[in-house]
Amino acid sequence: EDLPCTLADLRAAYADGITPRAVMTALLARLADIDDPGIFIHLEVAQTLLAQADALGAFDPARPLWGVPFAVKDNIDVAGMPTSAGCEAFTRYPQTDAFAVARLREAGAIPIGKTNLDQFATGLVGTRTPHPVPRNALDPAIVPGGSSSGSAVVVAHGVVPFALGTDTAGSGRVPAALNGIVGLKPTLGAVSAGGVVPACRTLDTISVFARNVEDAHAVCAVMAGYDAADAYARPLRMAPPPAPLPAPRIAVPDHASLRFFGDSLQAESFSATLETLRRRGAEITPIDFGPFHDVAQMLYDGAWVAERYSVIAELMESEPEAIHPVTREVIGKARGMSALDAFRGIYRLAELRRHCVQLMADFDYLVVPSIPRFYSCADLAADPITPNSNLGTYTNFVNLLDLCALTVPVAPREDGRPGSVTLIGRAGADGRLATEASRLTRAVAGIAAPAMPAEPADDEMAIAVCG
Amino acid sequence: EDLPCTLADLRAAYADGITPRAVMTALLARLADIDDPGIFIHLEVAQTLLAQADALGAFDPARPLWGVPFAVKDNIDVAGMPTSAGCEAFTRYPQTDAFAVARLREAGAIPIGKTNLDQFATGLVGTRTPHPVPRNALDPAIVPGGSSSGSAVVVAHGVVPFALGTDTAGSGRVPAALNGIVGLKPTLGAVSAGGVVPACRTLDTISVFARNVEDAHAVCAVMAGYDAADAYARPLRMAPPPAPLPAPRIAVPDHASLRFFGDSLQAESFSATLETLRRRGAEITPIDFGPFHDVAQMLYDGAWVAERYSVIAELMESEPEAIHPVTREVIGKARGMSALDAFRGIYRLAELRRHCVQLMADFDYLVVPSIPRFYSCADLAADPITPNSNLGTYTNFVNLLDLCALTVPVAPREDGRPGSVTLIGRAGADGRLATEASRLTRAVAGIAAPAMPAEPADDEMAIAVCG
Repeated sequence: EDLPCTLADLRAAYADGITPRAVMTALLARLADIDDPGIFIHLEVAQTLLAQADALGAFDPARPLWGVPFAVKDNIDVAGMPTSAGCEAFTRYPQTDAFAVARLREAGAIPIGKTNLDQFATGLVGTRTPHPVPRNALDPAIVPGGSSSGSAVVVAHGVVPFALGTDTAGSGRVPAALNGIVGLKPTLGAVSAGGVVPACRTLDTISVFARNVEDAHAVCAVMAGYDAADAYARPLRMAPPPAPLPAPRIAVPDHASLRFFGDSLQAESFSATLETLRRRGAEITPIDFGPFHDVAQMLYDGAWVAERYSVIAELMESEPEAIHPVTREVIGKARGMSALDAFRGIYRLAELRRHCVQLMADFDYLVVPSIPRFYSCADLAADPITPNSNLGTYTNFVNLLDLCALTVPVAPREDGRPGSVTLIGRAGADGRLATEASRLTRAVAGIAAPAMPAEPADDEMAIAVCG
Repeated sequence: EDLPCTLADLRAAYADGITPRAVMTALLARLADIDDPGIFIHLEVAQTLLAQADALGAFDPARPLWGVPFAVKDNIDVAGMPTSAGCEAFTRYPQTDAFAVARLREAGAIPIGKTNLDQFATGLVGTRTPHPVPRNALDPAIVPGGSSSGSAVVVAHGVVPFALGTDTAGSGRVPAALNGIVGLKPTLGAVSAGGVVPACRTLDTISVFARNVEDAHAVCAVMAGYDAADAYARPLRMAPPPAPLPAPRIAVPDHASLRFFGDSLQAESFSATLETLRRRGAEITPIDFGPFHDVAQMLYDGAWVAERYSVIAELMESEPEAIHPVTREVIGKARGMSALDAFRGIYRLAELRRHCVQLMADFDYLVVPSIPRFYSCADLAADPITPNSNLGTYTNFVNLLDLCALTVPVAPREDGRPGSVTLIGRAGADGRLATEASRLTRAVAGIAAPAMPAEPADDEMAIAVCG
């Protein structure tokens, strides 16, 4: 039976009298059909999930996420489920939900389990896990993307309308691009980090995977809320998206700055999307992306890797074999780094940030390819480092520069692989990005299916049909 | 002959027909009388100064600092004068003024020389210099304070109406307190750091010494201005001071948090100042200062000392004997610090900052003793570290917490030593502090000299009579 995979569809189904128990049952059947042991590290037992579904009682439209099942990356606490961050020796058993999960539960949502990830959220590929690698939902030959691999895949399969990831280098965007869904990386500090295993504590945020922009933004709006107990929280609100800009001024990487590592179809896909934007009134300006690339480079080559080390230093010294060998190699580099290196990196970032801010000053937002190219699982087996680094080309700089980002699917490429671009805005511009990204997905849908009816009016929501 | 030592007096003198040449001549005579070889590391030759005075031409009241001589701490560039930061081997010969100095010069001010300092602005005592130690302007037995020792002393002597210092740990406040003058430490980033030798680049600011609050604020307003070339500049304006608060809500360290290291007169002086504030309508609330003390502790014990090391690492490794032995010992600690230490310190600071922000939330500003006690030059000769640390008790946390501060003289203590308190406000509250500090100095003056006429109306400026 059909499983509604957008919030609007699910809500409509509940209003029509379908029960959460029925949805939960269908969801578990769908998961069994998919038969991918790599998606969940911990799936709640069916009996408990059905009991939680029943406990919701009668449909309560006042609760914005009433009866919405969701999946949670296994570096975010859910009360009663283990949190391992993909490392058994690291496992903790939280008695309380992460701050953001608690807010979602309060709104009526039901966490169904903890998803697989690149261990300690360190990676963009999804293959750096001691568990089976989740299969990419669209093409099992290509990597699922990471680090939020399981969360992206389970949403791409239409099992749940949304799932939580985290995003430091691009872990909430790269897997969205590889699985053809939406990935929303909010402004740093908008969503509490309470109950989240840090990767780089100064650069982390919870992120959302969903089937459309509206759902991702709505979920984020429910999660967001100032948490005084989180030293990195900021008093930001996820304001309702504003009206679209009639002629958005968009900056894109200029020809010399674009990097596709030989994937010409990806270059064509990006050009086609810019053409769509232009046709819809956008002013597109190519800019030198050199400083953004320089910032991206700093995330793993610079002292910030010491932030990752700070999370696992004790474990790494006492029980190194408990850590995935690639993760150990990547994070182990922090051992040789001095406080001098750290501050020199901080200074260099401040200077590059100033430069990037100036480059962005005349524009409403940036649009970049979400990923420069695709990589297969075989590519990663042959070289676990280089493809991972390349995948972060258009994502790694975003949190270092305190920007927000929204990854959206666009028309599939000629070879059928998912097209994707990412909109990037200034801190706090989450609502603006949602409006613009939503308009882009409508425009792209219009091109991909020219027989479709006219563009919906502004007060309608564009609903992807799936499932 | 009399040398006007406030901007208003000097301006009035110029309006009356006195020439900059006459002022410059009197100033040089005064300096000769003081006969302290420790104040200046480099004093411009008289001929040049007189020529610059003459070059100003006719009095131009449109230039806010027309004909105002000032001194510059020797870690700030003045074109044509060497910058040594108190270390001969480090000396550079800048061809251009520091950004802030250029703005002052544009307003008509004339830099007369470069003042002595604790080498590399590392210290709060003024004794950590290879040059003669500047004599405290009020009592040669006590230390002049640092690191901006020469700048504070020269203003306290009435030689110039203002001088520039820098402030990282308290270098713009401690020497103001020890010499009985005003020390203004603006919000970080309000004044460009362009052309300044860094101490801790993330925590440094230029500061101003003056005889009254109005002068300090006016000078700061001229210097402030966004410098896009300084990665740590912020687009703040030194707004004109607002109207005074009728009943300011002031937080002060509670009894258990106050530290005077045995100096009971300092405790009495602080109590008397609070009593004055209370009588003028302030609501004084003692708060737990523990988290502020914890932050203060981090500045030299934590990884931030690696910022100082980053400035002199090459020199320290190649030519260690070129560096003052105490400075070398203090900064050398950075060699053993890792990037892990740096990020753990950054996290701890973020948590303490959150705590401190919450403690300050219900108050307009803080008032603290500027220094906990006095130390003699003999004390420093016996132990060059502990007295220095203690002097930072009420200053070290301010830049780490991104606050602004204004140090003002209050009634002298029973033993004749200068009384001083410091007002501390949130980032950007520089104007608010100026208003409140100005009112406090008027109130204190009223108490110290009960025969004085009634408090001036709000639109009058309180002018200290001196020199």
